[in-house]
Amino acid sequence: MYGAGDVRIENVPDARLVEATDALVRVTRTAICGSDLWPYKTMEHTNAGRRMGHEAIGVVEAIGADVRTTKPGDVVVVPFAFSDGSCVFCQDGLQTSCVHGGFFGTADVAGTQADAVRVPQADGTLYVLPVGEDDALLPSLLTLSDVMGTGHHAAVAAEVGPGRTAAVVGDGAVGLCAVIAARRLGAEQIIILGRHPERIALAKEFGATDVVSERGDEAVERVRELSDGFGVHSVLECVGLEQSELTALTIARPGGAVGRVGVPQEETIPASRPAFYNNISVGGGPAPTRAYLDELLPDVLEGRIEPGRVFDRVVRLEGVPDGYRAMNDREAIKILIEP
Amino acid sequence: MYGAGDVRIENVPDARLVEATDALVRVTRTAICGSDLWPYKTMEHTNAGRRMGHEAIGVVEAIGADVRTTKPGDVVVVPFAFSDGSCVFCQDGLQTSCVHGGFFGTADVAGTQADAVRVPQADGTLYVLPVGEDDALLPSLLTLSDVMGTGHHAAVAAEVGPGRTAAVVGDGAVGLCAVIAARRLGAEQIIILGRHPERIALAKEFGATDVVSERGDEAVERVRELSDGFGVHSVLECVGLEQSELTALTIARPGGAVGRVGVPQEETIPASRPAFYNNISVGGGPAPTRAYLDELLPDVLEGRIEPGRVFDRVVRLEGVPDGYRAMNDREAIKILIEP
Repeated sequence: MYGAGDVRIENVPDARLVEATDALVRVTRTAICGSDLWPYKTMEHTNAGRRMGHEAIGVVEAIGADVRTTKPGDVVVVPFAFSDGSCVFCQDGLQTSCVHGGFFGTADVAGTQADAVRVPQADGTLYVLPVGEDDALLPSLLTLSDVMGTGHHAAVAAEVGPGRTAAVVGDGAVGLCAVIAARRLGAEQIIILGRHPERIALAKEFGATDVVSERGDEAVERVRELSDGFGVHSVLECVGLEQSELTALTIARPGGAVGRVGVPQEETIPASRPAFYNNISVGGGPAPTRAYLDELLPDVLEGRIEPGRVFDRVVRLEGVPDGYRAMNDREAIKILIEP
Repeated sequence: MYGAGDVRIENVPDARLVEATDALVRVTRTAICGSDLWPYKTMEHTNAGRRMGHEAIGVVEAIGADVRTTKPGDVVVVPFAFSDGSCVFCQDGLQTSCVHGGFFGTADVAGTQADAVRVPQADGTLYVLPVGEDDALLPSLLTLSDVMGTGHHAAVAAEVGPGRTAAVVGDGAVGLCAVIAARRLGAEQIIILGRHPERIALAKEFGATDVVSERGDEAVERVRELSDGFGVHSVLECVGLEQSELTALTIARPGGAVGRVGVPQEETIPASRPAFYNNISVGGGPAPTRAYLDELLPDVLEGRIEPGRVFDRVVRLEGVPDGYRAMNDREAIKILIEP
């Protein structure tokens, strides 16, 4: 990406091992993420460009001398953050804060929207899958790299549980996965806030019990009507705009929790005083999707959840620029890339 | 209080029963709260004035026809919020959001800095104490009405527990009680941020293991030095200013929690992005001190905690105006009032 709206497919030097802890992974499935749309909308032009993408499933092609837990030929999930798996934060299950970690698609580490990618800290990062490289479940397995794990993180941060009511703000791929996560964790009511018919239809299939298509104050009023007048216990904020955070904090009932996974676009969190007077907590952040693989993988393998249904268009690498456009125009929910 | 700096003691009509669920309580101990200093600094002049005070221990003088759980002669704690004890929020232990509740010292219900006070929702609000009306423990028991329960709430919201490190922002009476609470819940390190020698000395006696007297960026750096470079797990924010909230969010380690009990003075919470990227949660609010009495009372009665030591000056009602001045000038930590 060279700037807002300017995505190009180019030949670059081959990815290769650099550190002894690296693995080289041939990418078999990757995707365009809602968070990729922020730079697609706003990035200033740069001559150097930025190598995009942070979600992947692939096949290990080569490993550095110190890599122990994976080997060439393994089919692996590449979580959007790499992590050493051993630091104090990794031990706590917060791999996105790993002291030797980082993110794909940044200045330091190239992105996954490519034929191959260098994976730092391979032992801590990669998760070997018990499937072949063309398994029918690959789309759903790919979501464990980011969006399904992120939806789950929103649900955890929002303290979803049996007997609790939930609302999901945002009907993008993460919001839809957040619906799956809220249902999976036992929420008895799941209200989706969104207005795109196909997305809403999918949200209902994933377990949403109610739909609120209004916005702003009207949305707040409608959610309250649907939840005994007080609001919901758990709000899963999957957008990151000031208005969506304000809505999230305003539809949470006293004592409730907001789990944020939409990348915040503002410097401050709104509604400090209402949040305070109602004892509403605000948590969340980048999801440690690596930590959630053990828990979520069996549900995907056994078909209990189908997060791969968020992919409604498939492109090859040359189709990626148009894929960005289609997602940005809301023609597509989420683009699957088969390099 | 008629305006900033203008506190007067006046004769008013006697407090009396209004509703069948009321009790009339003769106040035997009350106090000036740090939160009373916000209007003392900023309140615009009003001809009607505001009846101040929201902490009390007293003796029940009369009860309404529907009151069942207390009777004349009982020595009781009056929590700073009244609550029906039966609504959905009271059942969840969040009495400060009671649907029939409210606060003392407001337009609707007179304050406790008085000879007597009408207590709405007496059955849900009052907590009968097993002591006489002149017991030596009254100062510590009085703190269960607000500041000790509030410090405990900060610790709960900040997820203090065994093996966790904690920092307390603010060395007022609530901050000092927050130190007691953090120690009581098992924090292995308790850093107090403050600079008043007598308060710091008391904080150390209450269990603070480290003191940071710097402010702003220097305070952040010092806390990090004291906590393995990453910050602390739990931050107990007991001030409510933008700068103190910013400090709180910046000294929390990734995955940490900030528990806010200082009444926020700004419309927004600062540092949204750092909080997000570090997965730091922000919780807290007005403490449901009524909910905490069962847990905290035995520790006071058996002398395991001595929160009453935050009172370093005693006045009678006529001394209240000077008490406000002394607390505002930081001559006194907290004023005990014996009407």
